[in-house]
Amino acid sequence: MATSSSKFDPDFTQNVINAMGPKVDDRTREIFSALIRHLHDFAREVELTSDEWMTGVHFVNSIGQISTPQRNEGQRISDVLGLESLVDEIAHKLAMDTEEAPTSSSILGPFWSPNAPFRELDGSIIQDPAPNGQPALMHGKVLDVVTKKPIAGAIVDIWQASSNGKYDFQDTENQTDNNLRGKFRTDENGEYHFYCLHPTAYSLPTDGPAGALFTLLDRHPMRPAHIHLMANHPPQLQARLKDDLVVDFTPLEGDKNAQLELKYDIRLAPKGVAPNKELQANL
Amino acid sequence: MATSSSKFDPDFTQNVINAMGPKVDDRTREIFSALIRHLHDFAREVELTSDEWMTGVHFVNSIGQISTPQRNEGQRISDVLGLESLVDEIAHKLAMDTEEAPTSSSILGPFWSPNAPFRELDGSIIQDPAPNGQPALMHGKVLDVVTKKPIAGAIVDIWQASSNGKYDFQDTENQTDNNLRGKFRTDENGEYHFYCLHPTAYSLPTDGPAGALFTLLDRHPMRPAHIHLMANHPPQLQARLKDDLVVDFTPLEGDKNAQLELKYDIRLAPKGVAPNKELQANL
Repeated sequence: MATSSSKFDPDFTQNVINAMGPKVDDRTREIFSALIRHLHDFAREVELTSDEWMTGVHFVNSIGQISTPQRNEGQRISDVLGLESLVDEIAHKLAMDTEEAPTSSSILGPFWSPNAPFRELDGSIIQDPAPNGQPALMHGKVLDVVTKKPIAGAIVDIWQASSNGKYDFQDTENQTDNNLRGKFRTDENGEYHFYCLHPTAYSLPTDGPAGALFTLLDRHPMRPAHIHLMANHPPQLQARLKDDLVVDFTPLEGDKNAQLELKYDIRLAPKGVAPNKELQANL
Repeated sequence: MATSSSKFDPDFTQNVINAMGPKVDDRTREIFSALIRHLHDFAREVELTSDEWMTGVHFVNSIGQISTPQRNEGQRISDVLGLESLVDEIAHKLAMDTEEAPTSSSILGPFWSPNAPFRELDGSIIQDPAPNGQPALMHGKVLDVVTKKPIAGAIVDIWQASSNGKYDFQDTENQTDNNLRGKFRTDENGEYHFYCLHPTAYSLPTDGPAGALFTLLDRHPMRPAHIHLMANHPPQLQARLKDDLVVDFTPLEGDKNAQLELKYDIRLAPKGVAPNKELQANL
């Protein structure tokens, strides 16, 4: 893994960086200086051949060629290379450092919606039939991580893909708006409970460059079955749950609406101490 | 320019690299390990925000969307970021180290053609009329850089864009195959002479992502006027000329075919000592 930059023209990269004109703003200059430097260091380190480079060029071209307003292949590739999660990690780390609210729609991922309706406790986010979908009762308490006390009136925002692996706006043939989405307020005991689907593992689209990249890297394109969950109690408490957190669904008896149960307590931290976990069930 | 990776999860990047499966061949593993590491180091170093990342994702998608079999926007972007020239520099440096032949069509750039015809000395590569094109006589000697002696029978391969900035296969409306291309053999005195066009500076296409990148980086999209030249004397001598080499065209009198003259001697080195210069005239 030795870098071999010393073999090559030591001024090459700085010359490209210096080609930026005087009108470039500071942030753009910072980003492109670093991008060019790392890109060149990469090429020198692996001594990238012309054929490998041209393969990469064609690969980059193929990303946009399969993208549509409904299909963002660039984002998929970014995900496969770990960049999407890294940007998320950077944002959350910085949010914790600065105690600013760590929310933006792109941090929340492409499938969160600001329009999810509030639903009654004991209600269901299952609006539309899901073939082979197994209804499950999800419930638990929202607790203050510091005082350990239940928090009444906290908001739990839930979204998940249907049993075919698609979210509502990817699947307008089978799903109506806000299917498998909903916000719930905890009751006076800090409890929430609602019906959802036992989540289904699904494959990312494999008919494009992301699929080719999965094959090339000998990785599988399946995302573990998961439920997205964001909880907060404005203004001072917030948790966005995102991480590999394996949970167990258990059989449920005596409930006509579901045969499975998931009990999950959520601990809310003051901003600045927020954990960063996503509820994700590996089945 | 302090790297700030220590702030962030120290295992993040290695986990992504480790996701590669056992079937990945060694070279692919080497390339993607380095790519992922440099990509992540870049993001951490500049603390890339979610909005900046999403801007980048859309930019990558836009590259392929404007690309066609005749337009390789990915290659243009690679050129703007200096990667294309760097890969070329790496290949030539390695070729010199290993004394292997440094030729492949991608190293020679997108506009070289293996099909250029041999032409007679004093002939012209101008097959088709070029509006505002100025014919020029180019001539000189091919010399052995070690012995200083002229080399008879050396091959000089020339290609250039027309006065509209386009090469033959980009411009089938105005140019026939092999217009402004040709190979010449030096005579018994090691001399070559032929007619070409005084080269014209031209703009890269600016209606796509490369144009946007030029604007963002406050750079101009003009390529300096240049003539491509490759000379060799098989098997042991070779030079590919590629660099910023400013030459002067001088007025030429008494030649009905041209009003300009360029005298350019070419020094051929044994493989392993080959210079790496492109004849490029900044007008």
